[in-house]
Amino acid sequence: MTYRLYYWPTIQGRGEFVRLALEAVGEEYDDVARGADGPDFGAMAGVIGSEDPGPPPFAPPVLDVGGRLIAQTANILLYLGKRHGLALTGELDRLWVHQLQLTLADWVGEVHDTHHPCGAELYYEDQQAEAISRAAVFREHRLPKFLGYFEGVLKSNSDNGWLAGETWTYADLSLFQMVAGLRYAFPNAMATAENDAPRVAALHDRVARLPRIAAYLRSERRIPFNEDGIFRRYPELDQ
Amino acid sequence: MTYRLYYWPTIQGRGEFVRLALEAVGEEYDDVARGADGPDFGAMAGVIGSEDPGPPPFAPPVLDVGGRLIAQTANILLYLGKRHGLALTGELDRLWVHQLQLTLADWVGEVHDTHHPCGAELYYEDQQAEAISRAAVFREHRLPKFLGYFEGVLKSNSDNGWLAGETWTYADLSLFQMVAGLRYAFPNAMATAENDAPRVAALHDRVARLPRIAAYLRSERRIPFNEDGIFRRYPELDQ
Repeated sequence: MTYRLYYWPTIQGRGEFVRLALEAVGEEYDDVARGADGPDFGAMAGVIGSEDPGPPPFAPPVLDVGGRLIAQTANILLYLGKRHGLALTGELDRLWVHQLQLTLADWVGEVHDTHHPCGAELYYEDQQAEAISRAAVFREHRLPKFLGYFEGVLKSNSDNGWLAGETWTYADLSLFQMVAGLRYAFPNAMATAENDAPRVAALHDRVARLPRIAAYLRSERRIPFNEDGIFRRYPELDQ
Repeated sequence: MTYRLYYWPTIQGRGEFVRLALEAVGEEYDDVARGADGPDFGAMAGVIGSEDPGPPPFAPPVLDVGGRLIAQTANILLYLGKRHGLALTGELDRLWVHQLQLTLADWVGEVHDTHHPCGAELYYEDQQAEAISRAAVFREHRLPKFLGYFEGVLKSNSDNGWLAGETWTYADLSLFQMVAGLRYAFPNAMATAENDAPRVAALHDRVARLPRIAAYLRSERRIPFNEDGIFRRYPELDQ
């Protein structure tokens, strides 16, 4: 079975957390909307709200696992984690990794809302004033709070360099992506905030060196950060 | 084993989704911060960020399941669902119910942000202008979109009145809570929007009539909606 991933073809976005997991285990997958002839938005849009196959997903990313669709990033990772040994074994330990992922998902949502505090239905330009207010709260309060939280989790896990257990899980891959994205979107704020989260910064580098991840990051499959994704570099939001 | 729930003692909030599940299965639980002598905020705060027992949760609700802590509402429900038959059996079916819950969680987050679009760190009064902008987008776009989505899910499930499978799951309980909360917070917008989601409205009533839920709703254990929770009745956000 080849997994089929349905996600926006021109951004990393939430789909990137799934791509990283699939790349990390060396699993082949069809990134459906990234057609050989360029972006194929229709291929992705067709699966949202569709009842074929199975009950309808609300939003991408969606993973087709042999005829069943799974949506919600953390839910997809829960599935892949169990199937490919990307998380711990034992129910409560797996739930702990999932809990970390859900906390990361909350953080992702807050990053998104720094540039779209009124909703994705409006252009950034039409909510820039609100975005400046929200981004200020994010930089001052939320960024250090989340970084500090994961710094504490890393310390509490025998300080072995990973969030849970003895080696990396999908949550480590996702924390790597958060750091990479935040460095892109908030270079000024992160330059300061990272100083208080050295374990998180080290985890980023450690994940980037995993052979399959390193190969992926060098490949054309890794879409560059840009101002259509979750992590956007708008200088007025990072001052 | 008696479950111990750590959540704010004076609001329904995200903890209510857990309370509803525990009530629906008739499980005894200790709502820790609701002390016999009144609210005990310290009992709840003490567990956040604490490494005893186990790795630290980021935020409430937190459920102590015999010495292990589980946080993140949807994660707690995933655990309870499997353990108490509150969800389907079979891995992919359980993930489908979890996916519905995660979509509900996104909706909850958006409701929260109608009154706190800049962040929970600021008072409502200090972000009221932004809240009015965000609430308008919510009422016009997001409320009908989410209601329409769950209406479609109900229709696709053999139109049997429940979201998944042949009887109620924790996702049905949560959708009940969404409808109840939205009716409280946005009475004007909901009066209109509900007309296009008759199956969702009927599900609300069906859940409210489940004997254990009906008993709970009549009891003092059910905290009334108020303006400290997720669902707040601010007339200026519902015009």
